[in-house]
Amino acid sequence: MRTIDWVDGAVEIIDQTALPDELRMLRLATVAEVVEAIQSLSVRGAPALGVAGAFGVALAARLHHAEPDRLAQAVREIETARPTAVNLARGARRAAGKLPQGPTAVLAEACAIRDEEIAASEAMAARGADLMLELCGDRPRLLTHCNTGGLATVTIGTALGVVGELHRRSALAGVIASETRPLLQGARLTSWELARWGVEFRVAVDSAGPFLMARGEVDAVILGADRICANGDVVNKIGTYAHALGARRSGLPFVVVAPESTVDHDTPGGAAVDIEDRGAAEVSATFAAANPAFDVTPHDLVTAVVTERRVIRLDRGEKV
Amino acid sequence: MRTIDWVDGAVEIIDQTALPDELRMLRLATVAEVVEAIQSLSVRGAPALGVAGAFGVALAARLHHAEPDRLAQAVREIETARPTAVNLARGARRAAGKLPQGPTAVLAEACAIRDEEIAASEAMAARGADLMLELCGDRPRLLTHCNTGGLATVTIGTALGVVGELHRRSALAGVIASETRPLLQGARLTSWELARWGVEFRVAVDSAGPFLMARGEVDAVILGADRICANGDVVNKIGTYAHALGARRSGLPFVVVAPESTVDHDTPGGAAVDIEDRGAAEVSATFAAANPAFDVTPHDLVTAVVTERRVIRLDRGEKV
Repeated sequence: MRTIDWVDGAVEIIDQTALPDELRMLRLATVAEVVEAIQSLSVRGAPALGVAGAFGVALAARLHHAEPDRLAQAVREIETARPTAVNLARGARRAAGKLPQGPTAVLAEACAIRDEEIAASEAMAARGADLMLELCGDRPRLLTHCNTGGLATVTIGTALGVVGELHRRSALAGVIASETRPLLQGARLTSWELARWGVEFRVAVDSAGPFLMARGEVDAVILGADRICANGDVVNKIGTYAHALGARRSGLPFVVVAPESTVDHDTPGGAAVDIEDRGAAEVSATFAAANPAFDVTPHDLVTAVVTERRVIRLDRGEKV
Repeated sequence: MRTIDWVDGAVEIIDQTALPDELRMLRLATVAEVVEAIQSLSVRGAPALGVAGAFGVALAARLHHAEPDRLAQAVREIETARPTAVNLARGARRAAGKLPQGPTAVLAEACAIRDEEIAASEAMAARGADLMLELCGDRPRLLTHCNTGGLATVTIGTALGVVGELHRRSALAGVIASETRPLLQGARLTSWELARWGVEFRVAVDSAGPFLMARGEVDAVILGADRICANGDVVNKIGTYAHALGARRSGLPFVVVAPESTVDHDTPGGAAVDIEDRGAAEVSATFAAANPAFDVTPHDLVTAVVTERRVIRLDRGEKV
């Protein structure tokens, strides 16, 4: 099953806001529908957002190829629909680079991005599983945060793809999925994927992660990224940094799995990234709230970054 | 308003499970009702639990003074209703120490414990406010976790009592209340108390705390304790340890406010404490969950402990 695809002239996605209660497909046939699906998190996850951005531009090219101003405006709306994951703007711009060649070329580029993400997931799963066994020994117990499965990519996933690969190799002793407040991507989406795969797991509140590590219930932390900066700083779902602090204090590997499309050499470090604030309503119905959707994990807390092409051992001084 | 008191022959409490939607009083007229109120968290917070334990024994003495076996059983049920906060068993046992002198003496001892906690709150508020200004300079922005207000004691509170005192001195620039999953004592109870006091605050998901510190939005962390061990380790609501790691990384003071009744010289360190696991249902309706209700913050991460009698500067090598 693909989280996102181009089907009969429109973008089709799994509506991630409806999971785990309902597996519902959404058909996005206008640019406004694509932007709304991105902003409401019906489609989310950095690699999936890259594909959504590209397909959104393909849709715009098809609908508005005779109206250059409207088309340019649509591309801007898509690439800025959310600010933090580099993949969205990058996917949209890459597809938009084919606009001079017409709608068919744009769609072909978007499909190429989709296919590259699928291939990247497969490569990361194998490479990441090898690394986890090297770092932890046989049958590690892993803690993961947010959702980095097939829902966040197109198929398989990034960090959760590694978890799935270890499960297939019978080389996994357990998973803790932190629930990932406020929108519960861990409790809703990661749980749904792990249950489908038959992986044994437990949900935990986000703030329990560091203590479960200190108590010896976790062998390593593995999670994804929305943007990896030139200096190795990792921008990812809020809570990632707290887990990194816990891993460091307990001497555990902290591994980030993300495709090369998430690596952003143009952003020097985490301080330069626009951290999306999603407003109070996601956190409290009544009171004011601080709701940064992402945080920055400084590169010195990261053991390694796994992409489809490389294992970057930041702990050994290797550079992104 | 008192969170818990003895009224006309029974224990009356504010039902903390009904807040913030409803301010509902519960009248506990049997030992079973006291135990149920403790286990369901209708009454919670280490100092309030000490008072609940003592009043529970006073109620048992009144109801069952002619049945020594049943009375002894009732005392055991009360003191073991929850395992982690030292105050519960300590309050119950202290009141039970007066059983040979009859029900009236037991009730007098329980009322003395209540009055001592009220006095302790007042002393901690003043002492703690002085310390925060000394550590942070004028008008600090504070992050707190769980609920440590009047609801957790009898009136005023521990850490939140300090926040209230700084507010009364016009010496507070803002508060972040972490929501405190899974039961949302921060979002429900601390928010309710701060709003009543007119304190400006924002709620945040628990995992955002360390990042808000790194981003410079917090000057210090202040929170309570369920047990302070002989070596200075602090056992407190799950998430405390993650906040302590965040404070350390950002070089911020991490201050624990708790009455002497929470200091347990008989427990050498955090590893010796029975950490209550409250089961999966609080975290997930569907999946297995790890749900430790408390964690251990190692003493080296604690700047100071404030009690009604002392400021213990752990960061300067002072001992509990």
